[in-house]
Amino acid sequence: MRKEATILRPTHNGDRYELTSPTVMPKAAGFLWNQKMMIQITCRGYATAQFMQPEPAKYAHSPNIEAKTFMQPEPNYYAHHPGRFVYIKDEESGHLFSAPHEPVRTTPDRFVFSAGKSDVAWVVESNGIRVEMVMGLPTHDVAELWTIKVTNISNRPRRISVTPYFPIGYKSWMNQSAEWNPDLVGIVASSVTPYQKAAEYFKNKYLKDKTYFICETIPDSFEANQQNFEGEGGLHNPSGLQEPQLSCGDARYETPTAAVQYRLGLKAGEQREYRFMFGPAYDEAEIRTMRSRYLNKQAFARTADEYAAYMAKGHGCLRIETPDKDLDNFVNNWLPRQVYYHGDVNRLTTDPQTRNYLQDNMGMNYIKPEIARKAFITAVGQQEANGAMPDGILLAEGAELKYINQIPHTDHCVWLPVTLDVYLAETGDYTLLSELVPTSNGDNFTVFERFSRAMDWLLRLRDDRGLSYIAQGDWCDPMNMVGYKGRGVSGWLTLATAYALNLWAGVCEHEGKTELAQHFRDGAEECNAAVNKHLWDGDWFARGITDDNVTFGIKKDPEGRIWLNPQTWAILSGAADKHQISRMLPQVDSQLNTPYGIQMFAPPFTKMREDIGRVTQKAIGSAENAAVYNHAGVFYVYSLYNLGGQQDRAYTLLRQLIPGPSEADYLQRGQLPIYIPNYYRGAWREFPRTAGRSSQLFNTGTVSWAYRCFIEGLCGLRGDAEGLIIRPQLPSSWDAIKVTREFRGATFHLDIRRGDVQDVTVRHKNQTLAEPRITNIKAGETYQLSVVVPQ
Amino acid sequence: MRKEATILRPTHNGDRYELTSPTVMPKAAGFLWNQKMMIQITCRGYATAQFMQPEPAKYAHSPNIEAKTFMQPEPNYYAHHPGRFVYIKDEESGHLFSAPHEPVRTTPDRFVFSAGKSDVAWVVESNGIRVEMVMGLPTHDVAELWTIKVTNISNRPRRISVTPYFPIGYKSWMNQSAEWNPDLVGIVASSVTPYQKAAEYFKNKYLKDKTYFICETIPDSFEANQQNFEGEGGLHNPSGLQEPQLSCGDARYETPTAAVQYRLGLKAGEQREYRFMFGPAYDEAEIRTMRSRYLNKQAFARTADEYAAYMAKGHGCLRIETPDKDLDNFVNNWLPRQVYYHGDVNRLTTDPQTRNYLQDNMGMNYIKPEIARKAFITAVGQQEANGAMPDGILLAEGAELKYINQIPHTDHCVWLPVTLDVYLAETGDYTLLSELVPTSNGDNFTVFERFSRAMDWLLRLRDDRGLSYIAQGDWCDPMNMVGYKGRGVSGWLTLATAYALNLWAGVCEHEGKTELAQHFRDGAEECNAAVNKHLWDGDWFARGITDDNVTFGIKKDPEGRIWLNPQTWAILSGAADKHQISRMLPQVDSQLNTPYGIQMFAPPFTKMREDIGRVTQKAIGSAENAAVYNHAGVFYVYSLYNLGGQQDRAYTLLRQLIPGPSEADYLQRGQLPIYIPNYYRGAWREFPRTAGRSSQLFNTGTVSWAYRCFIEGLCGLRGDAEGLIIRPQLPSSWDAIKVTREFRGATFHLDIRRGDVQDVTVRHKNQTLAEPRITNIKAGETYQLSVVVPQ
Repeated sequence: MRKEATILRPTHNGDRYELTSPTVMPKAAGFLWNQKMMIQITCRGYATAQFMQPEPAKYAHSPNIEAKTFMQPEPNYYAHHPGRFVYIKDEESGHLFSAPHEPVRTTPDRFVFSAGKSDVAWVVESNGIRVEMVMGLPTHDVAELWTIKVTNISNRPRRISVTPYFPIGYKSWMNQSAEWNPDLVGIVASSVTPYQKAAEYFKNKYLKDKTYFICETIPDSFEANQQNFEGEGGLHNPSGLQEPQLSCGDARYETPTAAVQYRLGLKAGEQREYRFMFGPAYDEAEIRTMRSRYLNKQAFARTADEYAAYMAKGHGCLRIETPDKDLDNFVNNWLPRQVYYHGDVNRLTTDPQTRNYLQDNMGMNYIKPEIARKAFITAVGQQEANGAMPDGILLAEGAELKYINQIPHTDHCVWLPVTLDVYLAETGDYTLLSELVPTSNGDNFTVFERFSRAMDWLLRLRDDRGLSYIAQGDWCDPMNMVGYKGRGVSGWLTLATAYALNLWAGVCEHEGKTELAQHFRDGAEECNAAVNKHLWDGDWFARGITDDNVTFGIKKDPEGRIWLNPQTWAILSGAADKHQISRMLPQVDSQLNTPYGIQMFAPPFTKMREDIGRVTQKAIGSAENAAVYNHAGVFYVYSLYNLGGQQDRAYTLLRQLIPGPSEADYLQRGQLPIYIPNYYRGAWREFPRTAGRSSQLFNTGTVSWAYRCFIEGLCGLRGDAEGLIIRPQLPSSWDAIKVTREFRGATFHLDIRRGDVQDVTVRHKNQTLAEPRITNIKAGETYQLSVVVPQ
Repeated sequence: MRKEATILRPTHNGDRYELTSPTVMPKAAGFLWNQKMMIQITCRGYATAQFMQPEPAKYAHSPNIEAKTFMQPEPNYYAHHPGRFVYIKDEESGHLFSAPHEPVRTTPDRFVFSAGKSDVAWVVESNGIRVEMVMGLPTHDVAELWTIKVTNISNRPRRISVTPYFPIGYKSWMNQSAEWNPDLVGIVASSVTPYQKAAEYFKNKYLKDKTYFICETIPDSFEANQQNFEGEGGLHNPSGLQEPQLSCGDARYETPTAAVQYRLGLKAGEQREYRFMFGPAYDEAEIRTMRSRYLNKQAFARTADEYAAYMAKGHGCLRIETPDKDLDNFVNNWLPRQVYYHGDVNRLTTDPQTRNYLQDNMGMNYIKPEIARKAFITAVGQQEANGAMPDGILLAEGAELKYINQIPHTDHCVWLPVTLDVYLAETGDYTLLSELVPTSNGDNFTVFERFSRAMDWLLRLRDDRGLSYIAQGDWCDPMNMVGYKGRGVSGWLTLATAYALNLWAGVCEHEGKTELAQHFRDGAEECNAAVNKHLWDGDWFARGITDDNVTFGIKKDPEGRIWLNPQTWAILSGAADKHQISRMLPQVDSQLNTPYGIQMFAPPFTKMREDIGRVTQKAIGSAENAAVYNHAGVFYVYSLYNLGGQQDRAYTLLRQLIPGPSEADYLQRGQLPIYIPNYYRGAWREFPRTAGRSSQLFNTGTVSWAYRCFIEGLCGLRGDAEGLIIRPQLPSSWDAIKVTREFRGATFHLDIRRGDVQDVTVRHKNQTLAEPRITNIKAGETYQLSVVVPQ
């Protein structure tokens, strides 16, 4: 067993993470994407890749017919899971190992898995042979670019075979085959996407139903038939590798595979380098084009540079130097990358949930605000005639609302002002509000009018008590049976409505619409009053009231007694007064905190509650039952930063979103600290063995909010209509940080220290500013600011 | 390598098949069913089991999220596929093997896979230990009953561990867990069937979402967590077996498994016997009930007897003794069993395709005609107001038309008289016709009237030329684009309509409705004339005419030039005159014949034809492209028997439906001769390596027709309104056969020989009958008949 401290390490500039054992965090993975595809690949070589055509599709498959579902958390891996492997066999001794680790699973002499921002790489040494593997993507095409170097690091000549094995899996029950294509120098698997209704034929006609694996260098033999390759030996010792060469078989309605073999003699120290491409294509002509475009050393190098430049565009607007170097690394390198992923490709869906689409673009404000601007127009361009927002935003021609987007949720309008808030703060561009946006239902309103209509819809969608109906769900919590009969209400949504109304009233005021502002402020007050009247339980706010008039999320509930979101949003909405807040916070701390973050609710459910629904049906043993649901947690952090004076509590919780800093913590979560997953497992008291485990799913609205918390909260750098406000909220254990912030085209270098001041003091060009706020910002300029915060 | 002749053998009475190598026919499987479940299990231990609740569901799963599809041909197996295994480890030497064969894949010293009619069993010997495994089912419940015997066949005492391993797989993304239940003495895995819409909750509420594996004898240790069990070792050498005992782990939103371990010392010759149950349940109470009902030696024995008695009810109405002993075995033991399966459980669907439902019940006429009678009433009870039959027949409350049943096919009405023909011939029960059957659309007609309405619908559904519209498909051939624009017509369907009309006219005549009979005979004549005018291509009949008026299945087509079905049905319908038939038959022989049966069409397609559709899109390399589609082949055989004088041709083709008789043939097909699969791979000229390979799918309308061909054709024993006609059609190489036929409650023993006669001669009680026909049949009597057929 290696020493813990050496298992996982960031490179010197933090833009790569290196894992030096394939076994201690077996699901640890890197991920890459471009606008058309994404791939998540584990340290052991298992991979999950999807591309858009325009719906998500795969080019390497599991060995059976897979269900088409939304992207799932906590993937399972098994011997035949799709992956990218290379077998190395000593042709003299017969010794066999595979890189990265699967399928042979030999304990390596040396192992480095290196997850970078624009590539994923390995070094694996076994039996005197070093294998270096690097995977990159092109910026504009769907393909994997693989470089495999093999070096003889023993002190004697060697005869070995090198056999890349890229299983293609079960492609289709309609037709699947694979064969060697000598012109393309590779294996081409063909298939027909299954369908039954004639009309679907025309939808499928131009799908990329081929998968290819092509080689820069002609191999000595190949195998396109999975069964031939594997044989009786099994993947850990394939029959195909027990012969002098691969059998050069084809697959005829048999499971396709791609294996090619090079047999070589290597002098001591000698190295060979191979390049391969793996991906989907419509026809051979497309493969030929891809080959000539990419498959050579120069093109690989150029493409890697281009791709790194593409990734660099997502570097974000914040660089920090704090006492917590792991945090710096995450915030400077990885968090903006994840935010960029969301805003750049919308999670590779054609119908993102409306709240996700808006929040993902909220993050994009910090990276490319012009994209976020367009997203607001796209979103409100799909507003319904009555002011409601649809459950999902359609991004491609022919796209449809799928899965969860067919279930009526009542919260989507809330996210309009909540996310617009960042756009306006970041850009000061109020011209967006006067853009005229027509919809397919024939109406034509300005963005401003559309937001107001959405707010009025929220106000209307309340019961006699003034509480918001929940229908089959608010937000993503699957409380699908609280209000399915049409009467149940949501405490959270009522509070979120109040928060949204207040935010929007502020915009109305800025636009000089005083009366309208008052109308919405009155609405917010009504909402807050209703919640206080019906849902304050003495020490915290209840979660809602069911169809049958049962209030839940209260002291007498043995399960689901306290929910995080109503507390958070009562702070944001202004519903909770100081006294209430002083009662709520200790309850959250004592009932919901875990070492891995803050649970969404507690105690966990042990059985179904039919008046709540799915979240309780999952009940005991489900990963999401009382999970540390990071999206809920980060809102709580955001509310604490808004509250002021809670910087220690806020920092601790914010820090918990990121795996680490201790290696034991990484190991328990089982994930590299290169992204925030949508949840860590909860039920910490009940199931300590699994608590904290990462979902391994990097799609989450959490990241935009986490980035916002660092920028607006911790660093306290938020724009207003005229400038930049500076109000850092350092945890008490920190004396100083340095921050670089890009804002409206200017660059701000801030040296922030504690000092003997009553309020934040900012000096610029040796002048102390009258208030901690910079106005008249000039694009292109650099501002050096000394900031002193109270001790 | 064993000698070919010993690999596969029937037991002395033919009701079991024994395979003595796990590697030469790796997909060879046995299957068992009862009214609520079915299981197909391979010689190597991989299993596919489904049960009805009321839709098909699984209790053991693959390791990823599986697609829910209709039952697929040519299943793929891979290391983590569901299966039933037992690991045997020598605790002194560390030697490990597994029975039946997977996952360790040790070459056994002795291997017998024994597929019986009411159980599936194995004997596996390795390293001086014999493992005997037997799987049975109860008759009325969903559960597998496993007996595992372990014997020390070495001459010394041994210390071993016995570890049954029944993987449960990925149950649900909503919630899955598993743990040891000491009260039930077994592992119980729990899950929640995923759903998203609140309304679905009530559909799912009572699903059997638990999977249990319970033990008669308390094991020494257990493992409920797949990852714990497998570990780094992999399934071929699980980490869990490298420790002194299993780790007694649970699964919490982790992949469940069921492994239990017994550690024991065995003296030379000593044996231990274990019993286990594996299956789905709603709750623990149900598992407790199942345990007490079945899990002991006496109950296992009683249940096996009951189940054998249940299977015996499907023995059918025919016993033959011919020169072909393999054929006798198949026809006497296995074919009626497969017919019974179809008629008894309707392929375990809730919405069988109408044509399948009718044909499956056609077979049931030979086994339990009272079931077939009810099926006719059920089917016409779902007739549409315009006389059309729906695409599927709903058998359970809440069932829906799924998959292929959502695609409009135009042939369903045809099958009413075609299958009724057997009911009437078998029972002489014309009272069925006067049953009044209401439908949910409010009409109320007799069965006779409903049939007439269906026939009139067929007559109406024709174009100006008198040819039948094809819409998105006739029959199951996926010709979904010939007529999707509303103009394309089907040659086959026009002929089938004529055949159906003629059959129905015969019934009308029997019922004294002469005018109606003439009406339908005129319609049949019109159909035949239309086909002869528009589709006779000189040497055979074309398949159809597309929306764009292109006739296809003709000489100038380079692909899909000749189709079997139009030739068959032109014989049956009377469209083809003697001259035409004399031209057609050699074309069928020369263009469509293969050693494994007769292809559905030829030559295979190599690319999509957009005016034909899916069958051509599958094109080159697809298993079904130009497959030996047994359903088409058996109709051709049936038509040849009807034609008369074609007994050699008919027998050869009929014989080809059954794998064998040569062992080389079994091996190429890869299936035990215990059922007829829905297809063997075709494209024999193009892909000889894979031609003949079995689909391994035992759901097929072929079997009722095959049984009918043996009864009516080969043995020539068909009923009419008053009695039994005797017209055997022996192949010329046979001199004599013996037949036992059960018919209308009487038993007929026939001794059939060739002799110097002009026509068939029948002697009964030393009297030669005036015609080869027995009337005044008395139920309960036994008839000894001597039959002489012309030489």
